[in-house]
Amino acid sequence: MTTGVRRRMGVEERRQQLIGVALELFSHRSPDEVSIDEIAAAAGISRPLVYHYFPGKLSLYEAALKRAAEDLAERFQEPREGPLGARLLRVMGRFFDFVDEHGPGFSALMRGGPAVSAGGACSMETVSATNALIDSVRQAAYEQILAHLDVLVPSPRLELVVRSWISLAEATALIWLDGRRIPRAELQLQLVHDFAALAAVSAAYDPQLARVLRHTLADEPADGPFADLLARLAALMS
Amino acid sequence: MTTGVRRRMGVEERRQQLIGVALELFSHRSPDEVSIDEIAAAAGISRPLVYHYFPGKLSLYEAALKRAAEDLAERFQEPREGPLGARLLRVMGRFFDFVDEHGPGFSALMRGGPAVSAGGACSMETVSATNALIDSVRQAAYEQILAHLDVLVPSPRLELVVRSWISLAEATALIWLDGRRIPRAELQLQLVHDFAALAAVSAAYDPQLARVLRHTLADEPADGPFADLLARLAALMS
Repeated sequence: MTTGVRRRMGVEERRQQLIGVALELFSHRSPDEVSIDEIAAAAGISRPLVYHYFPGKLSLYEAALKRAAEDLAERFQEPREGPLGARLLRVMGRFFDFVDEHGPGFSALMRGGPAVSAGGACSMETVSATNALIDSVRQAAYEQILAHLDVLVPSPRLELVVRSWISLAEATALIWLDGRRIPRAELQLQLVHDFAALAAVSAAYDPQLARVLRHTLADEPADGPFADLLARLAALMS
Repeated sequence: MTTGVRRRMGVEERRQQLIGVALELFSHRSPDEVSIDEIAAAAGISRPLVYHYFPGKLSLYEAALKRAAEDLAERFQEPREGPLGARLLRVMGRFFDFVDEHGPGFSALMRGGPAVSAGGACSMETVSATNALIDSVRQAAYEQILAHLDVLVPSPRLELVVRSWISLAEATALIWLDGRRIPRAELQLQLVHDFAALAAVSAAYDPQLARVLRHTLADEPADGPFADLLARLAALMS
């Protein structure tokens, strides 16, 4: 049966299957713990056949990473409809889904370790390719947020708020993965609140940011995540 | 004269001088742009003599990085006296001094590039050593903040707030370095405000954090950075 399936696969289909299998393995363990033999076994093909499609583990790792990056960037897509807090909350849910699915791989990648050791030897090209891929996902997130804020040309402070909040979201996800001691639903909401709080801190210095924030808050429903934050801050200040 | 000085230097003194010279060079350019010849010239000694003290550029880079890490960790030291907002603001001033002094080197290091290429070839040991060094500085910052908050055993949410804020401070400094489009004094204050805002967001879920925050806010002077933040948030909510 497996053989029958294999025979019917075209080159591109087989490559895509191998990338999927590799991504699944690299998601759960560090790259140097995953062997080509294991990838071959999981794909139901021979080791030499893997090498027919990819020159080595490093290129398979890079391809898997590329697919993961595209997958993550796709999850940032959100219709520009309804209150902003709810939109961001849905995106955070999908971001944590991704982090959950690729936990150890995400963690190892963001801590800057495994890309280098993926081939046994280390490769400057892989390090550069990996860093460029991470940056492209950050850039996709940044552009999505600006689009949702209806901002074409961000002020330096607005850019800082959005980019530094993206770092905060990464850090929060990494800390969550390390023991999962806080319910992820709470952290998803917290990151929405964090965004509003960081924007509020900077708004005093920046008319564009103040305008965006006021506009956003005005659209929020009384039971939305931003209203929730405002009530909480008011309680703390009383 | 230079020769006279050189002759009087002991082994350890010479090593320390070379580390200082290397750190200065690595602070302003990427490691692969700095040659041993240049380090030798800046130290006023011959190239073979550099190799007498260090096996190669990689070990000199590691030593320079270690000194920079110790220097930065020292700047986190702050007497546990007076309002917390003012203490954190002073630390932020010294943090931005450091970032300012070591700009391009700090940037390249935190973006995960140069440690790998520092020797021309790449070295897994250097990558590991570099990551461990960065983590040790983050840990020093984390422990300092807990000490200032008078917390011995942090709750998971308090730990998350402190650690994720440290990531935010790193990201903010990196974004600032890229063009310096926002006055650094403003960002130093902003990070103090960010800390309070992030803590306020999480405090609703966490009694320990709420207690720490209330205690902190109660100690703040009417013209301190936290009072400033509260006034600003109140204005936004009105």
